Amino acid sequence: LPHRFVLRQLASLTEVTEAIREMRVRGAPLIGATAAFGLALALREDSSDEALRRATAELLATRPTAINLKWAIDRLVRVVAPLRPDVRAERALAEAIAIADEDVVTCSRIGDHGLHALRELVEARRCSADAPLRVLTHCNAGWLAAVDWGTALAPIYKAHDAGLPIHVWVDETRPRNQGASLTAFELAEHGVSHTVIVDNAGGHLMQRGLVDLVLVGSDRTTASGDVCNKIGTYLKALAARVHGVPFWVALPVSTIDWEIVDGIRDIPIEERNGDEVRSITGLASDGRVERVRLLGSESPVANPAFDVTPAEYVTGLITEYGMFRPTSESLASLKQRVQADRG
Amino acid sequence: LPHRFVLRQLASLTEVTEAIREMRVRGAPLIGATAAFGLALALREDSSDEALRRATAELLATRPTAINLKWAIDRLVRVVAPLRPDVRAERALAEAIAIADEDVVTCSRIGDHGLHALRELVEARRCSADAPLRVLTHCNAGWLAAVDWGTALAPIYKAHDAGLPIHVWVDETRPRNQGASLTAFELAEHGVSHTVIVDNAGGHLMQRGLVDLVLVGSDRTTASGDVCNKIGTYLKALAARVHGVPFWVALPVSTIDWEIVDGIRDIPIEERNGDEVRSITGLASDGRVERVRLLGSESPVANPAFDVTPAEYVTGLITEYGMFRPTSESLASLKQRVQADRG
Repeated sequence: LPHRFVLRQLASLTEVTEAIREMRVRGAPLIGATAAFGLALALREDSSDEALRRATAELLATRPTAINLKWAIDRLVRVVAPLRPDVRAERALAEAIAIADEDVVTCSRIGDHGLHALRELVEARRCSADAPLRVLTHCNAGWLAAVDWGTALAPIYKAHDAGLPIHVWVDETRPRNQGASLTAFELAEHGVSHTVIVDNAGGHLMQRGLVDLVLVGSDRTTASGDVCNKIGTYLKALAARVHGVPFWVALPVSTIDWEIVDGIRDIPIEERNGDEVRSITGLASDGRVERVRLLGSESPVANPAFDVTPAEYVTGLITEYGMFRPTSESLASLKQRVQADRG
Repeated sequence: LPHRFVLRQLASLTEVTEAIREMRVRGAPLIGATAAFGLALALREDSSDEALRRATAELLATRPTAINLKWAIDRLVRVVAPLRPDVRAERALAEAIAIADEDVVTCSRIGDHGLHALRELVEARRCSADAPLRVLTHCNAGWLAAVDWGTALAPIYKAHDAGLPIHVWVDETRPRNQGASLTAFELAEHGVSHTVIVDNAGGHLMQRGLVDLVLVGSDRTTASGDVCNKIGTYLKALAARVHGVPFWVALPVSTIDWEIVDGIRDIPIEERNGDEVRSITGLASDGRVERVRLLGSESPVANPAFDVTPAEYVTGLITEYGMFRPTSESLASLKQRVQADRG
């Protein structure tokens, strides 16, 4: 994508780890589900304790920031580790399928709660087809980032389907252009009105009163509401604060890392290969997908993949349990509901 | 650039307007000087009042935001309009040469004043070769944007030449990547230590304490100190404020529009062709310079080329007359000095 839509079958642990590392599979929820299937595949080949340990370590090493990966692996290990090796593979596959199925329900619920909040905004601002609610999003948190629906885009799809007037500003999202290539693709397919912009434009648009809401996903959220998301999210949060624009984050509860409270100190920020900045893939005039070099010089490149938006800049967290404020107290109440729910 | 270094001779008004519009010539000071030569070329073909009016209008229409263009044209018209048509072309050429020569001196002086300020920062922070002063810059305000030296990069070149420990974070600067292709090229050629980053990374770096100073150029600055510069500058100014990072703007006095005080209301923001966002030029693996399409969908694109950073976010303005605070009072004193200087 965006130039070819290829369905690829991942048949082994090696293929799964490679797909996650190279970001053929990306987006917090989808990474979790894919890793679960990867572990199930690994156990089909070798279901010993040693193999389980090795596969777990290999999968955890692929991406350091997204917490869903760890959440999904931990969940599988908890289920299969106590079992006899000969029944582990089958049980792991069942659990991976459950994770994927639950992700669809989870994202759909995020969409419902987000729809409710969007409807309130649309009514409060008297939006209409001529003056739609203008939502800025960064990166891709749609169905290409999840099993279905997505997180940040789920409320947008549901709002569009419900006939609410919505327009989406799509941040290009350098260096990997997930906004320009994935989010724009998704929205165009779904018929949602949108405009692609470079990441640099958001501050200007907010200053001119052209953005009513910022709505993004998250790769890891702390128990105090600090939000780690794609690099550049933080700059948009700062501009949103200055211009009084609400800043919402949509995330499944599995994205919350209950063990940490200081996102800046405790979330490891993945530093990716500088070649992601140095060159880019696009469609050449003759129809070939080609990678071209953007930098002329042999200049060093830094490529941090995520940044942390402190809780104070976040207006609300949309989860499958509803909208929560980004405070330790509010999230503690969410945790209680999650635990009660799981019995 | 960055893949080919081509020197092009502009031989007619049409070639000059085309070069400015298509940004083969860009950067506020260089646009001004080039437009002056364009007008001189036009007068060589036809030096009547009517031709002067037509050429002036044509040049002014090329780029609406950069004020140097208007400044240079106004200066030439003031000089040649009172003259007999048959001596206009020669006088215009002399004045264009004067503008270009003065630009070199102006930028060099900006460099000297900036060097002084940089030296103070380096000393105050006890910077060393191991812990250099880390300066973030956006877009290109180097010698490729001026006749020589540049504006924002002039102090950096002078600091480097003076042996001050400096490291530059180079914003890629989407959509036209002037940072990645021009600034990185300039700094590499000059041997200045630097690292290229995507525009999204600046907030994260400031949050982690990795930026000591933001230093940019300007395309137009109001009499109250509002700074219009390449799109994305404003987001960096917001982050700099939050993290206590000084935000300096280097500009020749000719970039100040003395007639306006409210930059957000009164500076026209050029909206450029969306194709600048949709596709990009790079070097293919076989060595050809190729334009590739980045967007897969037929999505609409918005492409505002500049944004306005209100004076309150600016720490200091480095001009050829020294460092000034971005206030109406401080700039009024600068104006008096300029007028006294011009007699």
